[in-house]
Amino acid sequence: MIFASDNWSGPHPDINAALAEHGRGMAAAYGTSELDKAVERRFNEIFEREVAVFFVGTGTAANSLSFAALNRPGGVVLCHREAHVVEDECGAPEFFTHGARMAPVDGSLGMIDPFNLRRELKRFNPGFVHAGQPMAVSISQPSEAGTIYPLEGLEAIADIAHEHQLALHMDGARFANALVASNLSPAEMSWKRGVDVMSFGATKNGCWCAEAVVFFDPEKAKQFPYIRKRGAQLFSKTRFVAAQFMAYFENGLWLELARHANAMADDLRGALDRGTHAKQAWPTRTNEVFAIIEKDTAERLRAAGAVFYDWNPPHSSHDLLKEGEILARLVTSWSTTPEDVAGFASLIA
Amino acid sequence: MIFASDNWSGPHPDINAALAEHGRGMAAAYGTSELDKAVERRFNEIFEREVAVFFVGTGTAANSLSFAALNRPGGVVLCHREAHVVEDECGAPEFFTHGARMAPVDGSLGMIDPFNLRRELKRFNPGFVHAGQPMAVSISQPSEAGTIYPLEGLEAIADIAHEHQLALHMDGARFANALVASNLSPAEMSWKRGVDVMSFGATKNGCWCAEAVVFFDPEKAKQFPYIRKRGAQLFSKTRFVAAQFMAYFENGLWLELARHANAMADDLRGALDRGTHAKQAWPTRTNEVFAIIEKDTAERLRAAGAVFYDWNPPHSSHDLLKEGEILARLVTSWSTTPEDVAGFASLIA
Amino acid sequence: MIFASDNWSGPHPDINAALAEHGRGMAAAYGTSELDKAVERRFNEIFEREVAVFFVGTGTAANSLSFAALNRPGGVVLCHREAHVVEDECGAPEFFTHGARMAPVDGSLGMIDPFNLRRELKRFNPGFVHAGQPMAVSISQPSEAGTIYPLEGLEAIADIAHEHQLALHMDGARFANALVASNLSPAEMSWKRGVDVMSFGATKNGCWCAEAVVFFDPEKAKQFPYIRKRGAQLFSKTRFVAAQFMAYFENGLWLELARHANAMADDLRGALDRGTHAKQAWPTRTNEVFAIIEKDTAERLRAAGAVFYDWNPPHSSHDLLKEGEILARLVTSWSTTPEDVAGFASLIA
Amino acid sequence: MIFASDNWSGPHPDINAALAEHGRGMAAAYGTSELDKAVERRFNEIFEREVAVFFVGTGTAANSLSFAALNRPGGVVLCHREAHVVEDECGAPEFFTHGARMAPVDGSLGMIDPFNLRRELKRFNPGFVHAGQPMAVSISQPSEAGTIYPLEGLEAIADIAHEHQLALHMDGARFANALVASNLSPAEMSWKRGVDVMSFGATKNGCWCAEAVVFFDPEKAKQFPYIRKRGAQLFSKTRFVAAQFMAYFENGLWLELARHANAMADDLRGALDRGTHAKQAWPTRTNEVFAIIEKDTAERLRAAGAVFYDWNPPHSSHDLLKEGEILARLVTSWSTTPEDVAGFASLIA
Repeated sequence: MIFASDNWSGPHPDINAALAEHGRGMAAAYGTSELDKAVERRFNEIFEREVAVFFVGTGTAANSLSFAALNRPGGVVLCHREAHVVEDECGAPEFFTHGARMAPVDGSLGMIDPFNLRRELKRFNPGFVHAGQPMAVSISQPSEAGTIYPLEGLEAIADIAHEHQLALHMDGARFANALVASNLSPAEMSWKRGVDVMSFGATKNGCWCAEAVVFFDPEKAKQFPYIRKRGAQLFSKTRFVAAQFMAYFENGLWLELARHANAMADDLRGALDRGTHAKQAWPTRTNEVFAIIEKDTAERLRAAGAVFYDWNPPHSSHDLLKEGEILARLVTSWSTTPEDVAGFASLIA
Repeated sequence: MIFASDNWSGPHPDINAALAEHGRGMAAAYGTSELDKAVERRFNEIFEREVAVFFVGTGTAANSLSFAALNRPGGVVLCHREAHVVEDECGAPEFFTHGARMAPVDGSLGMIDPFNLRRELKRFNPGFVHAGQPMAVSISQPSEAGTIYPLEGLEAIADIAHEHQLALHMDGARFANALVASNLSPAEMSWKRGVDVMSFGATKNGCWCAEAVVFFDPEKAKQFPYIRKRGAQLFSKTRFVAAQFMAYFENGLWLELARHANAMADDLRGALDRGTHAKQAWPTRTNEVFAIIEKDTAERLRAAGAVFYDWNPPHSSHDLLKEGEILARLVTSWSTTPEDVAGFASLIA
Repeated sequence: MIFASDNWSGPHPDINAALAEHGRGMAAAYGTSELDKAVERRFNEIFEREVAVFFVGTGTAANSLSFAALNRPGGVVLCHREAHVVEDECGAPEFFTHGARMAPVDGSLGMIDPFNLRRELKRFNPGFVHAGQPMAVSISQPSEAGTIYPLEGLEAIADIAHEHQLALHMDGARFANALVASNLSPAEMSWKRGVDVMSFGATKNGCWCAEAVVFFDPEKAKQFPYIRKRGAQLFSKTRFVAAQFMAYFENGLWLELARHANAMADDLRGALDRGTHAKQAWPTRTNEVFAIIEKDTAERLRAAGAVFYDWNPPHSSHDLLKEGEILARLVTSWSTTPEDVAGFASLIA
Repeated sequence: MIFASDNWSGPHPDINAALAEHGRGMAAAYGTSELDKAVERRFNEIFEREVAVFFVGTGTAANSLSFAALNRPGGVVLCHREAHVVEDECGAPEFFTHGARMAPVDGSLGMIDPFNLRRELKRFNPGFVHAGQPMAVSISQPSEAGTIYPLEGLEAIADIAHEHQLALHMDGARFANALVASNLSPAEMSWKRGVDVMSFGATKNGCWCAEAVVFFDPEKAKQFPYIRKRGAQLFSKTRFVAAQFMAYFENGLWLELARHANAMADDLRGALDRGTHAKQAWPTRTNEVFAIIEKDTAERLRAAGAVFYDWNPPHSSHDLLKEGEILARLVTSWSTTPEDVAGFASLIA
């Protein structure tokens, strides 16, 4: 009954098998091996166009280095007030950009409201140096609240960003979960909707450590090799990341794993909807579920072996909880079992 | 009729006289001259205790280097959502702190609401590295909205800050204006209320370029000489700043100048209260006045030679304006004349 | 005949086996699993004292974050002019320290000359802010030139560092190779000689990606969790690094692998000493060999499949090469075979 | 007998007069006043072409922000080993560039040797990310050793820089002194010799605080307004700097003041050449003189009121001094008197 995070899961066996297979013999280091290049081609296929892809070690690195690549002096990134880049990366985005500001935009259910985005951007006048200069809009798909931007939402935000000559960055730490929940292709969910750069995460979905920055316009990536090396994110034995991605994409493994995680979350959502001592805090469709749980039920759950984290309510709903309730985040993964969910369900019934 | 900013005013004649007087002959550079030391002693007297004082060139530098001195890795500064350090310093606070985050706290009239501050701080758990670590609370006195924190407000915020082992920083770019409006001593308005470090501004109030960082506990300033030099803010001929401060404090000149500026603003406020084509957007007591003005009146004013800036409404009141209205900031200074105000008044009557 | 770098080698089979074994089931993320803790205890045993150990992803990260932890404003690191932190990390040490300067100290054979170190430090006067403030001395063991500091050399440098209140950092990217070449224990080669912080590398010696920062005084590591997270080096599934270290230390695997690499390098050195078309550029004792090779021999070697890099001569010997010669670096690893060396040897005979 | 530094001198009376004159009334802030624009035009005349000029507060700021404008990720600035940007700015150049490395190039008499520069640049291979990427060459004219690059030297360095697509930056903290010693025009000494960006100093030569960054290709300055503001170097009352420059250039005041300072240094040099207890350490032609002085003579001089600093010998001549000698730097300024020099001369005779 571990719902702490999808990063508590280990690697899928195919990932380890790939490491064993591709670990044999000598291979060029620092991203220049044949395997590295094969994975780069694989990304082109996945996204149905030529992209520039760079492996990094953490999602925080992917986001932070993306911003570093897009940055301008006095740069400002417009993002959701509870975005991972604001609340969960210990200031790494600001650190790697030499101090770009993450400007919070409000919006319900963890998603930027396009009207708020436009209003926020109106606060900046071109050439007025004091306010700094917006340089990117960043969204998470799925959002930090487990929700998924509808295509119209993505497009509205992309249009506003591009109208203002801003790049659109997508934090895709759980991209596969959004894809399978929406039944869309990677291209439809990204560059075809106006995304310019994305953080492509595979770690949470069955890898050990496989993250990448993807530029949909390779021209924009010219300085990125230096940005990555200076940021201490150029691994020497990169085939170790490449091997993971190779197996991850093979026969659609990545989508299959995400489908399983989402399905387990569906079951959890069902249990919460039926339960009397807990309920969904808001509707989600991916592998993250947010639940309002009675405190004593929470204690009972934990005593029975359930693992999950307390979560901060959104700024816009700080009165979400009544006395005696907690907000909990429940995350499923490729290795969550129906038994885990059933056990949890029976305890809140 | 120039109400653009108090930094459009020149220096008071006494300031130039001091430059002429103290510019003669040779003097030790980099803050070590007799005059520099005399000014340091003067600060001790002004604040009724031993302080460590460091001259810098801009208010942005004073704020940013203060934060650099207080910073911890992954540091977070809690400040008002429309604070100068957030909206008007082009990211300098983030830049000089290697990426500390300015976490916005809401509150009406430009002032942090202590309840919101406490709620915001609850989002951080000690040892939870992902969220970063709060390292300071920063307030402006007067606030960016021209209002003045009451003593109880200051104390409430200081108590919360210190409870959480956070330093309290005060941006005092217009400190003198707050003092005379409140009829309080510098000590009462600062360290006696729990302020640990402050940015002490004199430029806007009749100097050319005289800003300082004041540490109320000199022990905390041990590394500041390096922070300032590395930040390119150690002037060589520091007696040039010292001379300005000398004249500024002489015979209470600073308070006299601030009193004049506030009085001119009082007259403006009166005119707005009586006017039909413009009104105060919210009440203020210092030398900043915020007015809602009908667009054609604003055009008429500008055509007649009035100079003032359009201002962004607070996030909390983005519906402040009706169609056909603008929000304007009007700032008075030591050199504003009753004629300036009268001219403006007649145009909005 | 691949002598390009030890990071062209794959992982030792035991490393992959450990990944398979420890990848099963769920485990706490971000360095808090039982396995992570077991490895931390293992480091204590290895170093015969309590240490604070932090996993990171690259040697560049280990060095750069070590300096970030030791840094002071205007900080200066004294290191060898051809140190890896100067010449091969794309400015990451400066980047992660917000601009600390890597001050080059000369010394022959890639090692800091203690007399030069003392002379360099004399250029700094305490309290003279203009020059910045030294904050650490950094050495590599083995050095970038493949040589090994003798214990007296280490002690002389440590004494000078500590006399000046500077921490001594050791870049141990190939620490195991130095240990087995010297027949010393980890403790004898590090903290017993005055090392305060070290970068402990395992990647080059048979792992995939396993680096660590080791603080010999855990008190000094208090802020490091934030430094690492802000630096985007906190992996989520840290047991992946832990599993590698577990296998690495098991039954002395790490020393065995380093012994093999050094032995292969010994054979290469022997071949060069006997060869007529190539010779050692300077004597080394670890798994790095530097050779002066006639250009046409180098071409012949490469045509026959030998892989190695041209290398920049030391600043102190820029006239090292005669017309028609190149300087090459040859690196052996745990997976280098006697056949590789024999093939190379026959081509230069 | 104060030869400590030219920044111990006060302002020339004309500078104070200009402050008094231009301080009257209101004027637009932040570099947009009529006076600011007039000074910008003045710079165009001085340099015989359109330039982009930005006022800043210190020479350290001018150098550091110049580098920030030229920077690339992993950037490297090639400069003399004893350059001011290396030894006297507390790491500000590294700080403002987010960690660019100042790579030391040797050369006698404080000047980069073009052969060494070329050799140093050979160490970098395009696309080899590990070494970082050179982004500028920086020279000081006059050099930190008080010497002046001959035009051929400037051209040789500019050619090498431009061959490698590197900008050439000139630190002109004492530019006027170099000009009058060489009898060259500002254009001849800068962009006509290939200089792309320069730090233009006036503070040491009779101003209070007047420094500027000059871009000879205004296109390259597009982001500089943000760089300056983010760097806390955008003064509000910029007419205060403008007024100083206005007077500085009026009727060739700047060249006259520099001529006087150089002449006083000539007299000092003469005295040293004739003296028996002190001698020139190396020949100079500007207002800086370096002297080897017997220790007891130095004590005698100081007891008699002479003020000067001990100086670090160049790295290339650390055996410059014999037992019982010190190396002293003697700097003259616009306000040094013949009596000062005569007094010193008689004491070393």
